Amino acid sequence: MSEWEYNTPGISDECFIRGEVPMTKEEVRAVLLSKLRLKKDQIVYDIGAGSGSVSIEMALVLKKGQVYALERKKKALNLIKKNFIKFNLKNIEIVEAEAPAGMDALPGADRIFIGGSGGQLTAILEAADQKLKNNGRIVLTAVTINTLTTAIQELERLDYRLDIVNIAVTRTKNINKYKMFKALSPVYIISAVKK
Amino acid sequence: MSEWEYNTPGISDECFIRGEVPMTKEEVRAVLLSKLRLKKDQIVYDIGAGSGSVSIEMALVLKKGQVYALERKKKALNLIKKNFIKFNLKNIEIVEAEAPAGMDALPGADRIFIGGSGGQLTAILEAADQKLKNNGRIVLTAVTINTLTTAIQELERLDYRLDIVNIAVTRTKNINKYKMFKALSPVYIISAVKK
Amino acid sequence: MSEWEYNTPGISDECFIRGEVPMTKEEVRAVLLSKLRLKKDQIVYDIGAGSGSVSIEMALVLKKGQVYALERKKKALNLIKKNFIKFNLKNIEIVEAEAPAGMDALPGADRIFIGGSGGQLTAILEAADQKLKNNGRIVLTAVTINTLTTAIQELERLDYRLDIVNIAVTRTKNINKYKMFKALSPVYIISAVKK
Amino acid sequence: MSEWEYNTPGISDECFIRGEVPMTKEEVRAVLLSKLRLKKDQIVYDIGAGSGSVSIEMALVLKKGQVYALERKKKALNLIKKNFIKFNLKNIEIVEAEAPAGMDALPGADRIFIGGSGGQLTAILEAADQKLKNNGRIVLTAVTINTLTTAIQELERLDYRLDIVNIAVTRTKNINKYKMFKALSPVYIISAVKK
Repeated sequence: MSEWEYNTPGISDECFIRGEVPMTKEEVRAVLLSKLRLKKDQIVYDIGAGSGSVSIEMALVLKKGQVYALERKKKALNLIKKNFIKFNLKNIEIVEAEAPAGMDALPGADRIFIGGSGGQLTAILEAADQKLKNNGRIVLTAVTINTLTTAIQELERLDYRLDIVNIAVTRTKNINKYKMFKALSPVYIISAVKK
Repeated sequence: MSEWEYNTPGISDECFIRGEVPMTKEEVRAVLLSKLRLKKDQIVYDIGAGSGSVSIEMALVLKKGQVYALERKKKALNLIKKNFIKFNLKNIEIVEAEAPAGMDALPGADRIFIGGSGGQLTAILEAADQKLKNNGRIVLTAVTINTLTTAIQELERLDYRLDIVNIAVTRTKNINKYKMFKALSPVYIISAVKK
Repeated sequence: MSEWEYNTPGISDECFIRGEVPMTKEEVRAVLLSKLRLKKDQIVYDIGAGSGSVSIEMALVLKKGQVYALERKKKALNLIKKNFIKFNLKNIEIVEAEAPAGMDALPGADRIFIGGSGGQLTAILEAADQKLKNNGRIVLTAVTINTLTTAIQELERLDYRLDIVNIAVTRTKNINKYKMFKALSPVYIISAVKK
Repeated sequence: MSEWEYNTPGISDECFIRGEVPMTKEEVRAVLLSKLRLKKDQIVYDIGAGSGSVSIEMALVLKKGQVYALERKKKALNLIKKNFIKFNLKNIEIVEAEAPAGMDALPGADRIFIGGSGGQLTAILEAADQKLKNNGRIVLTAVTINTLTTAIQELERLDYRLDIVNIAVTRTKNINKYKMFKALSPVYIISAVKK
């Protein structure tokens, strides 16, 4: 049995083992999972898998599919492994490599999520385009203007059809008897369909 | 086969037949579905079902469960019926009644979503509490300060555990060669667990 | 000469001496100063003056007017005094007292800003209504749902005309060569005119 | 006497004659005025003056200074003229010309606000840099990703010091007895200081 007993994405943040690695928050994960438009038997990559939270969300949806989680940082890899054990999922494979190099050996992808690019976004998008099947989707989260700009520029050059939304989540925190507003930093989600 | 071929919630807005009835947008639907934390075999109500979009999202997740869609307005009911036919789902039952009265005859609920309350929010929450099983969840969307305030007050009085988030979605719209920011009005999502 | 050489409100945050006392950020200060609609010769109160930043903004606009800065906390009072010395303004008087009690002895007000209420918001609004001249304005910032709700309820009971806006500021922070989005928590600004 | 009797920027939207020309809303005007950091005796340009609202705000602060309002569109020019008459300000000069060409004949600027660029942003920024005095400021509003990206790219190339904030204003609208959230589309404000 898995750690997450529900059939809707957007796993509670507290279900994950957290380290110093930044993690996409549950509300944003729910939206980006939606933008991925997954089917049960797909092949998906998670580039810059970080804490592994998006890989786990995808693997839970993909009953008969397969997730490849690429990550190059030792700290993140340790965290990912712990989280994968906690959720006990059979259909995730960790690829200990830097993108785009680590993508070469993988089978063609139906969906590619890019949560981190280590300064290699242009090269990663080119490689992603090589691996992605027709009508496939690339989804990115951008927390910097640079990523937003580069992603749009490159995906338009590759002639993808784009959908861009910004999600600003404000939570409330109980402080004594008060419910105080506490903003999460807004995230752009860029969804691109290969024509 | 259903209209929606994907296994992730957050159905594209354009998949629904739209009328003059306001519809919860796909990104907000993805988050509120996540907050509902559905399981496959549950009984759920959709109070003030409007266009039927949330009922449809829930029915797609609940393979063996049942959705009861309550709506009192003729225009909305016509729209709901059209959308249910379009998505071809067997596990939604329309209840043509005003809440809370229409809830009386229904079986106990695991989840209750309240998208509209027609000025009867306090009474609806009291009735919802009567019908909801232990550890069940009520999820509301609030697009007015009044609904936000009343929901919190009443759910705290009923001793529920609350989680409150605000979701502000900004889309970009293509105008000539420009990508213009276009805000959707922000929505509070209140999730309440019965202890 | 004053510390601030410009004739527009919204003094840079870094111009103020900061302590552990929370400070309203410059963009939000610019908007709330706007909502105060100040004239040069007015009497204004700053209730819960905190770091003194709003008092200083108001005093700079009120060439011939007078600001009364009420604050009860020792830490904040020390900070206010340091900031007033730094900006070298003659038309601010510190009132070391708790509101509403400390308002009794003050002359009638044209404008009242409430940045903090120490759990006494209802009593403060009643006292403010007593001291406020006709066509005067009360402006509040709310960073909790409780303050938002109580302020609206009480100001409507007192028959004021309300304007409510939420301001969500996202700054960008330079991290290496990246411009990263960094949200400030959103603030409601409630402006109320005495009929 | 002027139409606006207050000494704080952020003139009520309803004080302006509105046409089909989009107008920067009062809360955003308050923040961008703040970012302009005006002094009383400055020379400022308003490029793409639109409805004239920002020119009027600046002219009210600049008692001894001068505003040059550039606009090329006939409809906007008619509107600007009506608004200038309404506010009865002596220190605004309308320049009926396209930017950057229309900037050539103007005296050197202390501040340049760019509210619209008609697809000529790069050329306008180059010309602005030529006309701007040292330590002068350029402030832009961006409502598209394109303007945001181009402005940053060009201003960094010109070696300006940048400050970038996004302002998302949500108003509440009275609908019957409800206070409904109504978002204005978010605006980026880019402030650039010439070193």
